[in-house]
Amino acid sequence: MNELAILHVPESKFCFPADDKTVSLRLRVSRLDKPKSISVVYGGKYEYAFSQKEAEMELVFTDRLFSWHAASIELSDVRFVYVFKIIEGENVFYYSEDGLSDSYDFTLAYYNSFQLPYINGADVHRVVPWMREAVFYQIFIDRFHRADAFKDDSYINMKWLGKPTPKSFAGGDIPGIAEKLPYLAGLGVNTIYLTPIFTSASNHKYDISDYYSIDRQFGSNEDFRNLMEKAHERGMRIVLDAVFNHCSENLRQFQDVLKNGRASKYHGWFMIDGDRPDAAARNYECFSACAYMPKFNTSNKEVQEYLLGIATFWIKEYDIDGWRLDVSDELSHDFWRKFRFAVKEAKPDAVIIGENWHDANPSLHGDQFDGIMNYAFTKASLDFFANESIDAGQFAEKLSGLLMRNTDQANLMMLNILDSHDTHRFLTCVGENRDKLLAALAVEFMFVGAPGIYYGTEIGMIGGYDPDSRRCFDWNGEGGAIADAISSLIALRKRRELKFGGIKIAHERGSLIITRDFDGGAVLLQVNASKESEDLLIPGNPLVENGLLAGKIKPWGFAVNSTVI
Amino acid sequence: MNELAILHVPESKFCFPADDKTVSLRLRVSRLDKPKSISVVYGGKYEYAFSQKEAEMELVFTDRLFSWHAASIELSDVRFVYVFKIIEGENVFYYSEDGLSDSYDFTLAYYNSFQLPYINGADVHRVVPWMREAVFYQIFIDRFHRADAFKDDSYINMKWLGKPTPKSFAGGDIPGIAEKLPYLAGLGVNTIYLTPIFTSASNHKYDISDYYSIDRQFGSNEDFRNLMEKAHERGMRIVLDAVFNHCSENLRQFQDVLKNGRASKYHGWFMIDGDRPDAAARNYECFSACAYMPKFNTSNKEVQEYLLGIATFWIKEYDIDGWRLDVSDELSHDFWRKFRFAVKEAKPDAVIIGENWHDANPSLHGDQFDGIMNYAFTKASLDFFANESIDAGQFAEKLSGLLMRNTDQANLMMLNILDSHDTHRFLTCVGENRDKLLAALAVEFMFVGAPGIYYGTEIGMIGGYDPDSRRCFDWNGEGGAIADAISSLIALRKRRELKFGGIKIAHERGSLIITRDFDGGAVLLQVNASKESEDLLIPGNPLVENGLLAGKIKPWGFAVNSTVI
Repeated sequence: MNELAILHVPESKFCFPADDKTVSLRLRVSRLDKPKSISVVYGGKYEYAFSQKEAEMELVFTDRLFSWHAASIELSDVRFVYVFKIIEGENVFYYSEDGLSDSYDFTLAYYNSFQLPYINGADVHRVVPWMREAVFYQIFIDRFHRADAFKDDSYINMKWLGKPTPKSFAGGDIPGIAEKLPYLAGLGVNTIYLTPIFTSASNHKYDISDYYSIDRQFGSNEDFRNLMEKAHERGMRIVLDAVFNHCSENLRQFQDVLKNGRASKYHGWFMIDGDRPDAAARNYECFSACAYMPKFNTSNKEVQEYLLGIATFWIKEYDIDGWRLDVSDELSHDFWRKFRFAVKEAKPDAVIIGENWHDANPSLHGDQFDGIMNYAFTKASLDFFANESIDAGQFAEKLSGLLMRNTDQANLMMLNILDSHDTHRFLTCVGENRDKLLAALAVEFMFVGAPGIYYGTEIGMIGGYDPDSRRCFDWNGEGGAIADAISSLIALRKRRELKFGGIKIAHERGSLIITRDFDGGAVLLQVNASKESEDLLIPGNPLVENGLLAGKIKPWGFAVNSTVI
Repeated sequence: MNELAILHVPESKFCFPADDKTVSLRLRVSRLDKPKSISVVYGGKYEYAFSQKEAEMELVFTDRLFSWHAASIELSDVRFVYVFKIIEGENVFYYSEDGLSDSYDFTLAYYNSFQLPYINGADVHRVVPWMREAVFYQIFIDRFHRADAFKDDSYINMKWLGKPTPKSFAGGDIPGIAEKLPYLAGLGVNTIYLTPIFTSASNHKYDISDYYSIDRQFGSNEDFRNLMEKAHERGMRIVLDAVFNHCSENLRQFQDVLKNGRASKYHGWFMIDGDRPDAAARNYECFSACAYMPKFNTSNKEVQEYLLGIATFWIKEYDIDGWRLDVSDELSHDFWRKFRFAVKEAKPDAVIIGENWHDANPSLHGDQFDGIMNYAFTKASLDFFANESIDAGQFAEKLSGLLMRNTDQANLMMLNILDSHDTHRFLTCVGENRDKLLAALAVEFMFVGAPGIYYGTEIGMIGGYDPDSRRCFDWNGEGGAIADAISSLIALRKRRELKFGGIKIAHERGSLIITRDFDGGAVLLQVNASKESEDLLIPGNPLVENGLLAGKIKPWGFAVNSTVI
């Protein structure tokens, strides 16, 4: 065994309670090592010296460097201590807190075994049940659909379908979303993520000056209530954007500090180097380098209470279904812990999805976020489909590696996306190759976590970086083949294999093959990433396909089949 | 570079804020790799694509398998993103979230660089200032000293200095400790850790039936107030034992459940499988298998509030200086986070020391404990001094590895111990070899963290496992050589090198050599672990020594010298 490659970290993604009685374990070893068996030798803390049980671990994933072995153990005594036993040829190794050894003294295990000392209910990260079949649809409101014909529209400064600039206003509104609910339901979408809707001077509204009112361009609080009710009537859910990292310079509290300087009771709400904020000198912390978006001091107790009040207000008064957290990685963990308590107390099945483009594991232990916008998935998809810098095998390893970044529960609550208002549109990244887009969507839908669709993907919308990725939705545009394929993929998502099943990610002859299996059934995806048509390698009945002809898949075509295992 | 061995985990002991403006970084590589240089290529999140800085990392420790490189960087922009750059021969490698590569595209860093996205004050683990020079002395009260001659002593069932059984009562009390404060101050001790003092039926009092009153055997609440005041007058601090995992079956709330079953409003305070606790059936969770010590449900909000009330009561009313947390690893992390808020709000420099015999890193991120009783240090010391199963080199690697388990701040607040009421006495473990005891104490005092002395160590007390390690203190016993050496070691602890300095742990010719350095000064320890007398290898003026003759150190002798570097 390559001892340098072995990794296990107690009370982490390597060992976590899956529920009140079940522990999930992972051990990482070099992929070059092929041990005969790896098992967990475990027991109750107070009997372990003289009595141990053993559970075999299974090889679940292989990434570029490592093999990941896993086991799930149901416990009677939740004071769980353990070491790993590795059999390689004739040799037996034990792996404990003190590393690899060829024998292990269980009578001294209290010094150096691993342990999950107790499963306390309050520490268990629980899966929000509806996230297992959620299909997200992200709407950038100003560009989606306008329904209110009578509003003061003097702010609109571009023609619908014109080329947006950073300062464009096109007129989309909340009644427009309500009007299009039947359309979204028809597509099969069941969860809408709205970019910010509160009062703000910009088109994107990430600079909020009043967190308690809907921006007048978008409608009224009553319009929003109507949207929530209409959505809930259809069994659809709506997640709002919590912009708590920063606010607008027009926020009352910031204005008070501008006016009264250090004498303002809100001086400590912001991080100001001096008596008074000075936009020209930028003597205060703000979002990026945007002086008009001052950053909150989320270590401050009053700020925490203010923001928690907002978070729970929209749940209690409007029954929203969760929050997406803007720039979530820059706020204090301390704040997000309090946020989680408040939100889950107000609505236990509200979902909390962070925006963190990087490895967000420190925020995904169950005490802060449920999941994040999975930009690492985006990056891997771009490398495979757009840049073609990795092949099917490397993509399979990459996706496997991503699943090993976090616990199973966090994986189930990831929001997997190909693009968003903060990226180029995926279709543009793949040179407008629709086969690639559809194949990427098929991977997204087959992966663990909730798939997300950026508005207009279904009509083949294109666009580069902001503001180009925020074009207006063309309601006269084609639905056609892409929309049909997306609807079929959405229908797939209801299958138990995708909601509850395991996942295997493999590759064969240039094709990526993903299998989701549960209770005797399996759903399989093949994406042909070679330059030639390839044989259909997966058995079963076709569920969704693109580019399948006479048992062959064309380059970047895909097929999803189902089978009985 | 051996890519399998490289390890870095963002927002962990590998990357943490040392204060509001400073980030500490670590990178682990194989000890067999000898790169020409390792540096951190870093920058502010919003400028990183086009502007980076570079800071060299230093090789700080080598353990059995790995070399640990570290850097400390003071930041102007606390939105810190980074990758590592490794130069090996002619090759340059970059290490990011996506692993090792031979080039790195900084314009796409937002996808896969590492990051510490923002240093929020609320997330910074701050060192309790007095912990830098704390010397702990643990007292098992029933066996230390009796001063109250007039109390009802009918409970006493053993002669002072007799052989204790699990049910023995010897009569030690809180006035006895107050009376011995001058003795302890004379030894140089400045912090006392008391095993539990609240009302309880046992001699150890880990089964508490009233958390608000001092056990009558030990004295009154006023006796305790007097002890606290007397200690504080001398600049000494007192840390109490928080037994919050479980209570006594005699606790009013448990009795209420016994009486009223599920109708009791306290039913949810415990974890009972059924309507009513049944000691014979053991149908409820308890400490170990002790039915008389029912376990609290620390996921329950009312239990949390009850225990937090106790934690803050003894701080607010009696000004205690911290809590040692009994069986801390079995309570919910959720509870300990709330505990930390409450305790630090009541007294910011109160210290929180967990009891967790294993790798406690999940509890040492700054949101729960400050440090733990460092039983991993105990185990390493036993292996080296008692079992002689590891040599000086291996001991050096082991100690180095322990320092890499946690952040620098947590290391500074570890309670390093050789023994306790829960182990054999160290002197007994080393076959009553006093040279070994003294050398082990020298290592303990030179190590990072607070040294702890179990009562009676200074008079050479011996004893096996509980109850034998809880014998009575012999006030007519010798102080002599051990006490003198301990006093000299305690005096050392006040030096700036030991309070603020770095540490290097090396070995040479069978000797362990520890260097603490700060601001041009250094303190060096040599322990001769060979079977022969060895040359004194460390330069400078002798500060403390045992077994030093004519430039030679006898086997298991040690010398501490100081020098200017």
